[in-house]
Amino acid sequence: MRTYLDCIPCFFRQVLESARLAGASERQRKEALDEFSKIIPGFSLEMTPAEMGRYIYKIVCDVVKNSDPYYSTKRKSTRLALELYPAVKRKVASSADRLAKAVEFAILGNIIDYGVKNRLDVDEELKKIMTGDGRRQPKRKFYRYAKFKKELEKAKMILYLADNAGETVFDRVLIEEIKTIYPDKKIVYAVKSKPIINDAVVEDAVEAGVDKVAKIVACGSDAPGTVLGLCTKKFLKIFDEADIIISKGQGNFESLNESKRRVFFLFRAKCEVVAKHVGCGLGEVVLISAAGDKEDK
Amino acid sequence: MRTYLDCIPCFFRQVLESARLAGASERQRKEALDEFSKIIPGFSLEMTPAEMGRYIYKIVCDVVKNSDPYYSTKRKSTRLALELYPAVKRKVASSADRLAKAVEFAILGNIIDYGVKNRLDVDEELKKIMTGDGRRQPKRKFYRYAKFKKELEKAKMILYLADNAGETVFDRVLIEEIKTIYPDKKIVYAVKSKPIINDAVVEDAVEAGVDKVAKIVACGSDAPGTVLGLCTKKFLKIFDEADIIISKGQGNFESLNESKRRVFFLFRAKCEVVAKHVGCGLGEVVLISAAGDKEDK
Repeated sequence: MRTYLDCIPCFFRQVLESARLAGASERQRKEALDEFSKIIPGFSLEMTPAEMGRYIYKIVCDVVKNSDPYYSTKRKSTRLALELYPAVKRKVASSADRLAKAVEFAILGNIIDYGVKNRLDVDEELKKIMTGDGRRQPKRKFYRYAKFKKELEKAKMILYLADNAGETVFDRVLIEEIKTIYPDKKIVYAVKSKPIINDAVVEDAVEAGVDKVAKIVACGSDAPGTVLGLCTKKFLKIFDEADIIISKGQGNFESLNESKRRVFFLFRAKCEVVAKHVGCGLGEVVLISAAGDKEDK
Repeated sequence: MRTYLDCIPCFFRQVLESARLAGASERQRKEALDEFSKIIPGFSLEMTPAEMGRYIYKIVCDVVKNSDPYYSTKRKSTRLALELYPAVKRKVASSADRLAKAVEFAILGNIIDYGVKNRLDVDEELKKIMTGDGRRQPKRKFYRYAKFKKELEKAKMILYLADNAGETVFDRVLIEEIKTIYPDKKIVYAVKSKPIINDAVVEDAVEAGVDKVAKIVACGSDAPGTVLGLCTKKFLKIFDEADIIISKGQGNFESLNESKRRVFFLFRAKCEVVAKHVGCGLGEVVLISAAGDKEDK
């Protein structure tokens, strides 16, 4: 997905919020905004928002002189999500359509995203997910669920693209569910290669216990999305060979929505630009496939 | 009021929205964002947001090559407000406290502000004001109403600082109400000297019929607020000699809230930064005085 002009004010908000969360002083926050301003005139709208996210993060890291300012935030997110793990498993187990419920939880786990909404009280949001009675929950728009189930059944090798730390625990629940239904599927779980905001790296996936149910690989990208131009050859081979790709989060959607591969995007539409692009409401929980075919036929 | 870091992303949103409303093409809108980016590193947070608004408007005008891109928008706002004038008068006339009701309408008219919320459907917002049953209406926080009434009663000369075109019609209602209660008060209505967003200039005040009830003066400022450093000597004399000053809108609040003069600010808190500064909720209708004394004693 290209960058829209409406993304630009939002980028500045992200610079400010990211800097704040990284512990920047007011002077440092202004410095981050100033540095970011300087790159705007040379910035092409043909780039994806996820690529810009990489610049934002770099500026914030430079300003606070810390290459992983979200390290402790990520730990906290994973810990909170792990506490919920038994309850999530019970909820999935008692559902009429266990797979659909696991997909829904995997998407709801995507609320743990400091890149988009930094002030978010993760603990509070997670509680809402767990106690949701349908009214407080975001709408579920599984446009391609039937197709997803069908392709999942046929697939031998599944590539699962991670998004954020903490959310990884919810991914594990979905992977476990897939493994329960189809014990023979090979699942590769791809994370980022270097810290980028609160995106999961190998350590975060292991902490969430994903290593017990999938093979973990680092994709090579250090943008908050799977930017193929930044990925390793090894990862690109998996990307090409996978029978289906499960892509988590808005950043991965932004960087891969025009892919010709069989990608199913599971995410919450966290900004109006993406919601409009997808044709859903803000905050809705979406299952969509690449190449623009939205509706199950 | 100084500029907060949170204002910066909002400035970019304003650049984009203002450019859009001024009919800028996508390329021109990107150009406006680029130009604005360039001034951020040299921008001091000691300036008021209203002063920055002046730069934003200048950039937008330059990009679309039009020195008054909101001219037709202002005409439309005034026309819509004039259509409501008879109904507003009736509502004020049937109120237990006519002055309070007129003050409330004058503030509600402040919703006609393209500077803050450009996509606003002014027509729709005005209807909401007129049919408001208390539940749909924003909360009224008249912190200094008793003091305002007392000072108004004593005052010989009142300076009334206008905000936006269209809102001027609601100002006229309040001025008429003051004139009804106190026929001898001298009222000076100050507008901006040059077009700046949709702020009222002399033509807008005359169109709203304010000239029938007050003396209209141009203040000298061409920022979206009364920036005293930009005002004429003639205006500054009036500002110093007025017994009380009624200041409309957030831009005037931002530029005068630290004034030592007896200013009463009537506005809606349209952004979180100002709401937090004032200590009210977002969107609330506020009557407050300068120098930080909020509560009636």
